[in-house]
Amino acid sequence: MKKQKVVILVSGGMDSVTALYDASKKYRVICGMSFDYGAKHNAREIPFAAFHCQKLRIPHFVIPLDFISDMFASDLLKSGGEIPEGHYEEATMKQTVVPFRNGIMMAIAAGYAESVGAEGIVIAAHLGDHTIYPDCREEFMVSMGEAIRLGTYKQIEVIRPFIAMNKAQIAKRGKELRVDFSYTWSCYKGGDIHCGRCGTCVERREAFIIAGVKDLTVYAQEGPLPAKPGN
Amino acid sequence: MKKQKVVILVSGGMDSVTALYDASKKYRVICGMSFDYGAKHNAREIPFAAFHCQKLRIPHFVIPLDFISDMFASDLLKSGGEIPEGHYEEATMKQTVVPFRNGIMMAIAAGYAESVGAEGIVIAAHLGDHTIYPDCREEFMVSMGEAIRLGTYKQIEVIRPFIAMNKAQIAKRGKELRVDFSYTWSCYKGGDIHCGRCGTCVERREAFIIAGVKDLTVYAQEGPLPAKPGN
Repeated sequence: MKKQKVVILVSGGMDSVTALYDASKKYRVICGMSFDYGAKHNAREIPFAAFHCQKLRIPHFVIPLDFISDMFASDLLKSGGEIPEGHYEEATMKQTVVPFRNGIMMAIAAGYAESVGAEGIVIAAHLGDHTIYPDCREEFMVSMGEAIRLGTYKQIEVIRPFIAMNKAQIAKRGKELRVDFSYTWSCYKGGDIHCGRCGTCVERREAFIIAGVKDLTVYAQEGPLPAKPGN
Repeated sequence: MKKQKVVILVSGGMDSVTALYDASKKYRVICGMSFDYGAKHNAREIPFAAFHCQKLRIPHFVIPLDFISDMFASDLLKSGGEIPEGHYEEATMKQTVVPFRNGIMMAIAAGYAESVGAEGIVIAAHLGDHTIYPDCREEFMVSMGEAIRLGTYKQIEVIRPFIAMNKAQIAKRGKELRVDFSYTWSCYKGGDIHCGRCGTCVERREAFIIAGVKDLTVYAQEGPLPAKPGN
């Protein structure tokens, strides 16, 4: 059977890198696509996206979105304030939203996919995705998928292989696929090593613990994980 | 009553320039936004978008989308082939599609709108929009509107003031609003003056004739308008 041609969004985080290995088995992956939108951690994560694409002999493109860093407001950006510490579910993490980021990235990937004759775009959206971000919610993903299908000649499909999995299950899947997670990046602070305390670091640490997968990440600070708010 | 804050997409064509004057009466227009994606006519149309924004004292931004000219395939782009002549409805005009262009532009405008606290984005989509382009069709616009509403905290609205009008009715509306159409650009060839023969020129000429609005555009070639295919 002829494999479906896809474009995959790869940030260089543990979810999208696992999705890359997963997709390379199921699809003909035309390219991995990363976006440099001026986030504090872009310079840390994008080289890992490039690394894994190269390892799998998949072309990798970085799309610069300078207008986001120049014109948008978010503490995730180099132009913004400090990254908050604590659990991802906390209201403070709202400061790190980059407005409609997923919508913008998916639209660009869809346009490129249509341009090169691919039939789908793969995004590592998962069950535990941050409902504090409206453009991570299921209802957004479904309607954006519909808009992409209807707005392209090829009826490009949005493929979400991990939509029924949480981050710990992705860690397990990554282990099965022999993903070297030490070459993935989560920390929103974008320092030399993972801080261990911001929302994305806390989420990463939790996922490895729940999955029972050895966490080889070097964290600046570990200590007890903060409890989920409301728990 | 407090006016709704909006961001408007302004290409510099007759529809979006009319929408700009229309919106400046109804809304508080935060800015006009143009996109430079490497189309042959971008250098002709964008200065007109800037001109009308300045006249109305509305800030104007040009978002460069170099990745489209570098990576996408379309005869509309400087990197593509010749612009076909004839009627817009003809199959040859398909060559001028820029894949998912409306999706990409609307996603960016939505992200910026959310970032600056606007409540809506205005796009001059109209009844006669080219159904040869999937991302101009009503069904796409509706689902993209839904994705934008669901993917933003402010539930940003996609406003289409001309959705029940055809291009001739827009020409009439523009005349009422005293729009100087000689400072708008349609021709896809992007030469010094309008060619008069490409799909967008034919559509422009038709609209003024049907509307009974004097067409002050200087065309390189006029001659009889080609018939709609199938008519």
